[in-house]
Amino acid sequence: MTEPHKTFAFSQRARRAKVQPISFLMAQGVENPDVISLAAGLVDYDTLPAAQAAKLVGEILADPTAARTALQYGTTEGYETLREALLEHVAGLDGWRPDDMNLTADNVVVAAGSQQLLFILSDVLVDPGDIVITSWPSYFVYTGTLEALGADVRCVDMDADGMVGESLDALLEALADSGDLRRVKIVYIVSYHQNPTGITLSEPRRRQIAEIVRKYSRGHRILLLEDAAYRELTFTGDAPGSMKRFDPRNEYVAVLQTFSKPFAPGLKTGYGLLPGDLVEPVILQKGNHDFGSANFCQHLLARAMARGVYARHVADLCRAYAAKRDAMLAALDEHLGAMAGATWTRPSGGLYVFLTLPEHLETGAGGALFTRAVEEGVLYVPGEYCYGPDPTRTAPRNTIRLSYGVCPVEKIPLAVAALARAIEAVARGDSP
Amino acid sequence: MTEPHKTFAFSQRARRAKVQPISFLMAQGVENPDVISLAAGLVDYDTLPAAQAAKLVGEILADPTAARTALQYGTTEGYETLREALLEHVAGLDGWRPDDMNLTADNVVVAAGSQQLLFILSDVLVDPGDIVITSWPSYFVYTGTLEALGADVRCVDMDADGMVGESLDALLEALADSGDLRRVKIVYIVSYHQNPTGITLSEPRRRQIAEIVRKYSRGHRILLLEDAAYRELTFTGDAPGSMKRFDPRNEYVAVLQTFSKPFAPGLKTGYGLLPGDLVEPVILQKGNHDFGSANFCQHLLARAMARGVYARHVADLCRAYAAKRDAMLAALDEHLGAMAGATWTRPSGGLYVFLTLPEHLETGAGGALFTRAVEEGVLYVPGEYCYGPDPTRTAPRNTIRLSYGVCPVEKIPLAVAALARAIEAVARGDSP
Repeated sequence: MTEPHKTFAFSQRARRAKVQPISFLMAQGVENPDVISLAAGLVDYDTLPAAQAAKLVGEILADPTAARTALQYGTTEGYETLREALLEHVAGLDGWRPDDMNLTADNVVVAAGSQQLLFILSDVLVDPGDIVITSWPSYFVYTGTLEALGADVRCVDMDADGMVGESLDALLEALADSGDLRRVKIVYIVSYHQNPTGITLSEPRRRQIAEIVRKYSRGHRILLLEDAAYRELTFTGDAPGSMKRFDPRNEYVAVLQTFSKPFAPGLKTGYGLLPGDLVEPVILQKGNHDFGSANFCQHLLARAMARGVYARHVADLCRAYAAKRDAMLAALDEHLGAMAGATWTRPSGGLYVFLTLPEHLETGAGGALFTRAVEEGVLYVPGEYCYGPDPTRTAPRNTIRLSYGVCPVEKIPLAVAALARAIEAVARGDSP
Repeated sequence: MTEPHKTFAFSQRARRAKVQPISFLMAQGVENPDVISLAAGLVDYDTLPAAQAAKLVGEILADPTAARTALQYGTTEGYETLREALLEHVAGLDGWRPDDMNLTADNVVVAAGSQQLLFILSDVLVDPGDIVITSWPSYFVYTGTLEALGADVRCVDMDADGMVGESLDALLEALADSGDLRRVKIVYIVSYHQNPTGITLSEPRRRQIAEIVRKYSRGHRILLLEDAAYRELTFTGDAPGSMKRFDPRNEYVAVLQTFSKPFAPGLKTGYGLLPGDLVEPVILQKGNHDFGSANFCQHLLARAMARGVYARHVADLCRAYAAKRDAMLAALDEHLGAMAGATWTRPSGGLYVFLTLPEHLETGAGGALFTRAVEEGVLYVPGEYCYGPDPTRTAPRNTIRLSYGVCPVEKIPLAVAALARAIEAVARGDSP
């Protein structure tokens, strides 16, 4: 064959997609297998429910009717028994009755993790150039998805209570003034123990933000997309209810949850409670993607909920993660407590602590601190990855996302000590 | 609340999506639970591998290392051990060595059924208005997906040997003449026991079509998308190798296979062997969709392949489906053999027989024959659903897709007899 090399002619969507920066970190982890990872967003290995899953699968497959159903095709929207259980589950966490909220199991869609719902909800609302509002910082995988969809990402301040209502209001007001409100499709918030900061949106903010989204829904409805992935991993105090509570007609708020964090990521099952008029568009897209997620996993999870296995597991998990969080905070106090300008969040749940260093200490991948940290034996996520591409803002370069998800509890003090050594070395000027 | 009702402002993609006609049939099935379905594309319940799956899951979850890996997040491209096994598997079926075909496990992507790969491959190549060529008829779920993507679907004749090369060549020549070749992105073929006709693309046609696709890849490469979903369900004779054989540089042909038909749809796992320069674009999109399909199911399947469980199950399945196909063909011979103008395919595998009735007998949903068939106790898929929206062609209205997938073997004669009664009644003019 002597023909000249030809390329495929890719779609605009494919040409917009970029390799996510997290790939660099994953490669670092693979290339340095002895390094302790405080970077990976994986869950704790020791708490994965192997015995529980074995028992539940055994029950399902020993029952001929259950086995035949679980191994057959399911439906695009998901296993009905599971969807009914999930509606009751979220209702129980929130304290409402579905009837009072214009919600039935038909409003529940099961998907391949909550990520698939983030993608599809965005794909059905966002044309290239449309605006999606996130917090500053926010969950970077979703930010990457939005960029691939061609969205114009705008960011809103956050503080210790989460997204700042006044900042959201000011942005929307400015967009209204410039005639751009028609392009605003989604306001996105990771509302519990946020990835990357660990911050939970406070109760007053929840109400305020729901009101702001409604107020600026002038020509069309703006979707308040509440990513509650870490909700059930609340170790300290009670988590507030979801923002669904402020949407009794089920019009504005989509709440997404997942089994990946509180049970097992390997089952790749998430779910959303959606406004009625989003259900069909989402299911039509999902029909084109896969016409339904793994039915076998959904049957396992439905049984885990019905048997109380799920609730017991979440309680066990919270105890295990609380110990890991405590270990991380204690180690940060010990090793960085005396460092002027170093601060960090103290999450009441989830998997993340967000560390801010003195401004001159840059944390980026390939920089002096990152390199020294790997040499000392620890990997972290540079916080700058978590700040969206808002052209009106400049990402701080002195932050770090630390995760205690996958690191064994006994190694957390060692990992934090290694990180502190790297920080001190770079602060002293030991490294180039 | 007295505010006027506002709607979401949906994306162009969402506005293009339509409810697939198959929804009507599924509703018919639900509303008429006593009707025997020769419509459903489900697999046979009695052959689902419950005992095998129980044993494999038991092994995985009893091994702490395997359990922790299977229940944790996997990777976007899929479990490496499984991808390596799949490459060897297809190589074995085709009779080539990966080294000779420019293929490694990095060219294998695991997904949520082969449907997810159909979607993503199309999404990375097709902008609205781009052309995808399918056969006439073709797999209707994919046709619906293409319409939702805004593709311009063009169809090519098929005969008893599958897609007709001369018809494909003539279409591409006409598109070249009109300057539209630059819009042609994909030629799609269900190459084994096609859905809906049961026809397998013959060996000479495979070579001819691969050559035609290469010949018209002038400014850019056209992807030959080979959907080999039913490949392993070959009961009679030997199946030809995939069209990958005619692409030794791994440039033009993507071959998709699945575990849904030959093992269990509930595990929702399919895979593709992709040209190297399609791998990254596909994985970037999949990263945005779900960053990897259910890892637990992939571990189960990897073990099923390693233990020989998969190969034994496929052999068992082929015996069971062959009996069902034979029952359907015998019943058709008995009940419709004497009807002038009634013909049907005699598949060597897969799940489908395609029936053509005399031209005046219209088979559409809601018509006299369809209604009478439901009254007689049998549901079928009107063949007209399977003809793409090519504006230059008119779909025949006198065809029927019959599936022996889900119907128990002992009910097949009853179902075909019921269908024959309905046909005869309508042919006699008994029905409105």
